[in-house]
Amino acid sequence: MSEALRGPAATTRGRLRPLGLGAATITGGFWAPRQARNGADAIPSGQDQLEKAGNLHNLRLAAGIGTGEAIGPVFADSDVYKWLEAAAWEYGRNPDDDLHKRIRDLTVVVAAAQREDGYLDSVVQLRQGDEGRYQELVWSHEHYCAGHLIQAAVAQVRCTGDRGLLDVAIKLADHLFATFGDDKTVDVDGHPVIEMALVELYRETGTTAYLELAKWFVDARGHGIIERHGHSAAYFSDRVPVREATSVEGHSVRAVYLAAGAADVALETGDSDLLDALKRQFDHMWSTKTYLTGGLGARWEGEAFGDEYELPPDRAYAETCAAIGGIQWAWRMLLATGDAAYADAIERMLYNGFLAGVSLSGTEYFYVNPLQLRGAAYPDTGRSPAHGRRGWFDCACCPPNIMRTLASLDAYLATATEDAIQLHQYAAGTITSGEVELTVDTAYPWDGSVRISASTPTVVELRIPAWAEGATLNGEAVAAGGYARGSGQEFELLLPLVPRIVGADPRIDAVRGCVALERGPLVYAVEQADNTANVDDLHLLPEAPIATPSDVLDGVTILTARGKIGTGHRGGWAYRTDADDSTGPEVDVVAVPYYAWANREIAVMRVWLPRA
Amino acid sequence: MSEALRGPAATTRGRLRPLGLGAATITGGFWAPRQARNGADAIPSGQDQLEKAGNLHNLRLAAGIGTGEAIGPVFADSDVYKWLEAAAWEYGRNPDDDLHKRIRDLTVVVAAAQREDGYLDSVVQLRQGDEGRYQELVWSHEHYCAGHLIQAAVAQVRCTGDRGLLDVAIKLADHLFATFGDDKTVDVDGHPVIEMALVELYRETGTTAYLELAKWFVDARGHGIIERHGHSAAYFSDRVPVREATSVEGHSVRAVYLAAGAADVALETGDSDLLDALKRQFDHMWSTKTYLTGGLGARWEGEAFGDEYELPPDRAYAETCAAIGGIQWAWRMLLATGDAAYADAIERMLYNGFLAGVSLSGTEYFYVNPLQLRGAAYPDTGRSPAHGRRGWFDCACCPPNIMRTLASLDAYLATATEDAIQLHQYAAGTITSGEVELTVDTAYPWDGSVRISASTPTVVELRIPAWAEGATLNGEAVAAGGYARGSGQEFELLLPLVPRIVGADPRIDAVRGCVALERGPLVYAVEQADNTANVDDLHLLPEAPIATPSDVLDGVTILTARGKIGTGHRGGWAYRTDADDSTGPEVDVVAVPYYAWANREIAVMRVWLPRA
Repeated sequence: MSEALRGPAATTRGRLRPLGLGAATITGGFWAPRQARNGADAIPSGQDQLEKAGNLHNLRLAAGIGTGEAIGPVFADSDVYKWLEAAAWEYGRNPDDDLHKRIRDLTVVVAAAQREDGYLDSVVQLRQGDEGRYQELVWSHEHYCAGHLIQAAVAQVRCTGDRGLLDVAIKLADHLFATFGDDKTVDVDGHPVIEMALVELYRETGTTAYLELAKWFVDARGHGIIERHGHSAAYFSDRVPVREATSVEGHSVRAVYLAAGAADVALETGDSDLLDALKRQFDHMWSTKTYLTGGLGARWEGEAFGDEYELPPDRAYAETCAAIGGIQWAWRMLLATGDAAYADAIERMLYNGFLAGVSLSGTEYFYVNPLQLRGAAYPDTGRSPAHGRRGWFDCACCPPNIMRTLASLDAYLATATEDAIQLHQYAAGTITSGEVELTVDTAYPWDGSVRISASTPTVVELRIPAWAEGATLNGEAVAAGGYARGSGQEFELLLPLVPRIVGADPRIDAVRGCVALERGPLVYAVEQADNTANVDDLHLLPEAPIATPSDVLDGVTILTARGKIGTGHRGGWAYRTDADDSTGPEVDVVAVPYYAWANREIAVMRVWLPRA
Repeated sequence: MSEALRGPAATTRGRLRPLGLGAATITGGFWAPRQARNGADAIPSGQDQLEKAGNLHNLRLAAGIGTGEAIGPVFADSDVYKWLEAAAWEYGRNPDDDLHKRIRDLTVVVAAAQREDGYLDSVVQLRQGDEGRYQELVWSHEHYCAGHLIQAAVAQVRCTGDRGLLDVAIKLADHLFATFGDDKTVDVDGHPVIEMALVELYRETGTTAYLELAKWFVDARGHGIIERHGHSAAYFSDRVPVREATSVEGHSVRAVYLAAGAADVALETGDSDLLDALKRQFDHMWSTKTYLTGGLGARWEGEAFGDEYELPPDRAYAETCAAIGGIQWAWRMLLATGDAAYADAIERMLYNGFLAGVSLSGTEYFYVNPLQLRGAAYPDTGRSPAHGRRGWFDCACCPPNIMRTLASLDAYLATATEDAIQLHQYAAGTITSGEVELTVDTAYPWDGSVRISASTPTVVELRIPAWAEGATLNGEAVAAGGYARGSGQEFELLLPLVPRIVGADPRIDAVRGCVALERGPLVYAVEQADNTANVDDLHLLPEAPIATPSDVLDGVTILTARGKIGTGHRGGWAYRTDADDSTGPEVDVVAVPYYAWANREIAVMRVWLPRA
């Protein structure tokens, strides 16, 4: 164990060694104000929301404080734990006494809610009592809640040094180890996350039983042991064993959390067969079931991955939590393999599918992240983007998940090997590894220049994104896709941020004949607010878009492309032998980064526009 | 009331007067063998399925026969009533003693299950007792079950003369009238159908209270009186009053059943404002929310209509029941207005969106009717077409709905006015109105020739479908869209069945750049079974397809078009600046009628193919 590592997935067994908070520190640029709002506004308001929604009430009741009944969904505790994890990482970035007190006070409640034998799930305790434990694990989320508690405990001890929550986590994990396994209870939770958590607890404590149990949970799945509860085995990633699966399927968050946990197991056990299976699954997901934004999950029904190439922009589910789980999985694959493609994937998810899930203000969230919204938006359920971002949800998995991701983002920037430091994501800040301190100065993703100063001569490996054709390092051309290696003290990387017009694999039926705009890591969206013509009528011409810095949306670079206004529309029966898609006058088409959409109004938005 | 009218929607107040079974009789051609299989196989096996699924068990228990608990969903009774309705129409077409005995025996059970005061819902009676009545009408389907019982009772008395079920229906309707209304209980069922049913009972009995209550139910909706039960008000068609709505929204079957009931109210009360509102809604649905197949409902989530132009072929829900409800609504609009567009709509729904819901064998059903199935079909829930048609469903609304539609199909062929007989659908058979008997001889839809002989000189009005450019009546050109009027005794109508290549309104994003094949009333589908190239790779050329009679699929006319094989496919990240949709060698593309798909294997199927 790296003694000082303050970040998630603190493995020492992969090709790359993570650095953690403090060793990697974002100090400016694109992400710093987002992290500041996360710490100053989102995390405090999150605690208020947990109070209002009853999550804290449940834990207090289970702790013997007050009277009443459990409120909310069965997984209510998990949101508290995700908040505690976010608060711990935030404290790691920015130690603050008030935050520390909040963490400690809440930890006392959680500890008091735990049963004598280590069991802990306030909702089950209150609603069903001890006899109700694990009675319908497929739906009860008991291991899911336990997993988030363990993750919070690990973050807490890594960032505050406090063992309060860790003691609870160890007692709970010991109880789980005593309860589940081949000669014990043979069952798995309908919602993975316990796998990642147990491996982290193993990394933190060195107790191999936790790794063993994580491995058991990974391998127990896929043999149809999960009762269906109205869903297919695929929904629970229980149709095919992880080692045999060739793709992801079912509920997207469950699927990627499971895969991330399996990657953790593969990392720590050196199981190359399992790792190879996960590589195949990630590749297949990335080439056939991923949106341009890195969004995962094509179906509202079952919050699920669709078939290959089933990627409708309008009905994309692309849950914010799925992008987060995708980042967690890709990060573990990156550590295991050192393959830059995983860092490219993280970048895409981070700047697009993930970041669209939170407002510029930092305190309003999207659960669902489509790539198109029509003007005539159907009055839908509370998760619909047609209502705009919201302060909280009945099922509030996403907001605290965003908080913990932003608070721990520094940890995803860089890694080290014996002989080099790898920079995977470019953000203004400092990177420390051993004796070396790197200072990174960049306005990325608005500007493609990244200047790095090392405190002493060193070797760096800088990711050159696959899109970055024409990149140079210290004036020398470097290949796009992979890492450019350099040694010395001063480095200047230039990533050409030429606006790109991209098309889709023709097998993606839903965007046939359409193109989208990108620049650097950013996918762009065309919003009604920036365009006078109806955005649903716009067709894009192939002329190169122009990038212009602006003041809108906290200062994004806008893209101005050329397009034509469609004139093929008419009323009556929609299908005809003379149906056409003709276009009229030319107009400018103004696009803003996708992550920033729906911060001004809820109106027509499109990532994909028809080719003129 | 027309004394002898044996069919649904027996109104005398519209522009057109329905004729009913017996007056219109299908004797051969396309539909006769389908009706024969419906009577000989589907209806008997349906009763077995109702026995197996517990629906009959519930009613017996409520009748005091046997012991046990209610089984199945809250709306279980409704499937029994739809079966009883189907059996009654079938008896009307083809009187059979065994069927009559089955109907009578089951009617005795239903009558015995009814409570003293007229209330009847076996599941509520068994699970909640008398106190449980109407406690959560939004979800309990109590009026929905009542509506189907009333419809069955009306069919029974019209076709068998038996009043057994009618007495139950009257007692139940009287109970409803005594219970619901402005000064009584102000609530409506989450699932409409009671509206249509009460109007039919009024037509049968002359009791105006039933019409009054139907009107009240129509008008009570849309004021947010429905508790949500986890769904939006739109789901229940409760967001906007029927009179103010400009479109359909929410659960598609609920929406079209409500609209059909409202049309019944408008018909009988002469409420032209209500009728105008329904015209607007139908037009809007038909031009913006209807699939090429006439399928209704774009979303699996909430089984709902989507936004305008949101019509994905792969994730189409297009529930079989929605097509049936659409036919019922269109039929009432046709009777009210005499507008041939409604008969065109019925034809499209009947031959495509509806008929795909039942196998060629007549006893296997689709719940969901997409316009595309990918090869890599996701293992989904029991309703998924990726499993093929099924003998029954947990939620078994569709199978008995298909049975009652096929058994009463004769009633949708023709109507009469003072001075003419209108033929809306062309089927081999006889039409009797007053003194006149028409004999219709046709192999439609395979052949476009329809020969009609009248027993005495008469005036006929023959629907010329909007697609039938170049049609002739007795050698004279007649305009497509509307009715061609002729007088005499012998008529020969020629509807040119030229294969058509149709495109979609460019606002339907999901099929941009694609075309589909049609011939006459039939939409065609390209199935893997008929093509050697991967159907997902095929692109269609604009060359005229060739129609060829065949023996496949019980003898369909196949279409052979020309296409090219797509070569733009590749692996890796699916979005690139050089993405293209290029094509290689030319091939034949063989298509079969959409209704017949999935009768050989479950593999790739497409209605829409990219343009080459």
